[in-house]
Amino acid sequence: MSHIIKPILYSYWRSSCSWRVRIALNLKEIPYDIKPVSLIKSGGEQHSNEFRDINPMEQVPAMHIDGVTLVESLSIMYYLEETRPQRPLLPPDFIKRAKVREICEVIASGIQPLQNLTVLIHVGEEKKNEWAKHWINRGFRAVEKLLSSSAGKYCVGDEITLADCCLIPQVFNARRFHVDLRPFPIILRIDRELENHPCFRSAHPSNQPDCPPEAIK
Amino acid sequence: MSHIIKPILYSYWRSSCSWRVRIALNLKEIPYDIKPVSLIKSGGEQHSNEFRDINPMEQVPAMHIDGVTLVESLSIMYYLEETRPQRPLLPPDFIKRAKVREICEVIASGIQPLQNLTVLIHVGEEKKNEWAKHWINRGFRAVEKLLSSSAGKYCVGDEITLADCCLIPQVFNARRFHVDLRPFPIILRIDRELENHPCFRSAHPSNQPDCPPEAIK
Repeated sequence: MSHIIKPILYSYWRSSCSWRVRIALNLKEIPYDIKPVSLIKSGGEQHSNEFRDINPMEQVPAMHIDGVTLVESLSIMYYLEETRPQRPLLPPDFIKRAKVREICEVIASGIQPLQNLTVLIHVGEEKKNEWAKHWINRGFRAVEKLLSSSAGKYCVGDEITLADCCLIPQVFNARRFHVDLRPFPIILRIDRELENHPCFRSAHPSNQPDCPPEAIK
Repeated sequence: MSHIIKPILYSYWRSSCSWRVRIALNLKEIPYDIKPVSLIKSGGEQHSNEFRDINPMEQVPAMHIDGVTLVESLSIMYYLEETRPQRPLLPPDFIKRAKVREICEVIASGIQPLQNLTVLIHVGEEKKNEWAKHWINRGFRAVEKLLSSSAGKYCVGDEITLADCCLIPQVFNARRFHVDLRPFPIILRIDRELENHPCFRSAHPSNQPDCPPEAIK
C-alpha cells in the first residue's frame, strides 16, 4: 500500500497556499516530509526547469503522494479528504459542504491569486501594497458576510473544516499588507480561536524549516 | 422534495464562470431558470444592494437551489455533482478526480480571476489587453502541460468532466483577448471536440437570453 511512503510537500514557509495544505495534513495526522522551494532565492526556485516539471504553474504547493504528483492546494486538500477520511474536513451535509467550499473558493480564487508574489511583481513595487489591500478588503467583506450565516465556533459550524485551513493563512497575508481587520469581527474571532491550535501553530510560517531566523517572532 | 423546484442561475451571457455552470447543468440534464445579471448596465447590476445580498462577492454566477443560495462556480458544480449524481462529471478514481480538479483550479484560481472584468477595470483601459494575455498565456502553458499526461478524448480520459466545463469558456476568453492558441494543440483539439456538443452549444454566450442581438454570430 503506497500510504506507507510518506507524502512529500513542496512548500515555502510564507506561502499561504502551502500553509493551507500543511494545516490539513496536521489535522488529519498524516506524516509528511517537506521539500522547501524558495520563492525568492535566485529569482525563484519555482521557475527552475526542474520544478517546472513538478508544477507547470511554477508555484507551491505541489505534492508527491501515492505515486503521483498533485498540484493546486484545494485539489490536494480534496484528494487528502477523499483518500484519508480520518478527521473529516468537510461536513457530511451537502449544503454545509457547499458552504465550506464557497469560502475556500472565495479565498483561493477571489483573494489569494490577486495578491500573490507573481502578480505583485507584475503590478510593480510602487503600487503593490495598495493593490493587495484593495483585493483583500474586497474579498474579506464577502467572507465576513458569508460567515455571518455559516459560522459557529469556526467558519462553518462548530467543527474545523477546509474553510478554516484557507482562512487563517489569508488573515496572516492581510496583516502583512496592513489591512485594517476591525471591520471583520467574525474573521478576527475565528483567527483568535485557532491561532494557538497545535495543528495550525506547527503549520505556521515561523515554524517551517525554511523560515529565515530573522523572521521568527 | 425540493428538487421539484427548478434551480435559478444568476448568469451573464459572456461570464465564463456562469458558462461553466450552465454546461454542467446541461450535461446533467437539470432543468433550470436563468435570471440575467448585466455586468455592464448602469455600472454593473452585480454591485446593486439587491444582488449583494445574493452574492457578497458581487459577481456571477449564484444559484438558488434546494432552498439555499450558493455562490462560487466550482462550489456550485461540486454541489450539483454530490446531490445529482446522474451523468457524473468527476471520475470514480481518486487520482483522476484530483487531476480533474487540478485543471479546474488552475483555470478558476490561476487564470480567470486575473482577467475578469472587475480586475481589468482596475488595471485600466490602456494596459488591460496585455495584462489579460499575459496571464492567460501563463495559465494555458500549465494547462497544456497537465493535459499532456491526463487527456484522452477530453481533458482527463475519454469522458467529459468538470475540467472540460472550465476549459471551453476559458478558450473563448483567450480568443477575445487575441491570445495565439497555436502553442496549445491539446487545448485546441479538445475545444474543437466540444464546440458542437449540444450541452456546450446551448450554454454558449450567443445562445443566452441576455445576449445582445449584435453579438450573435
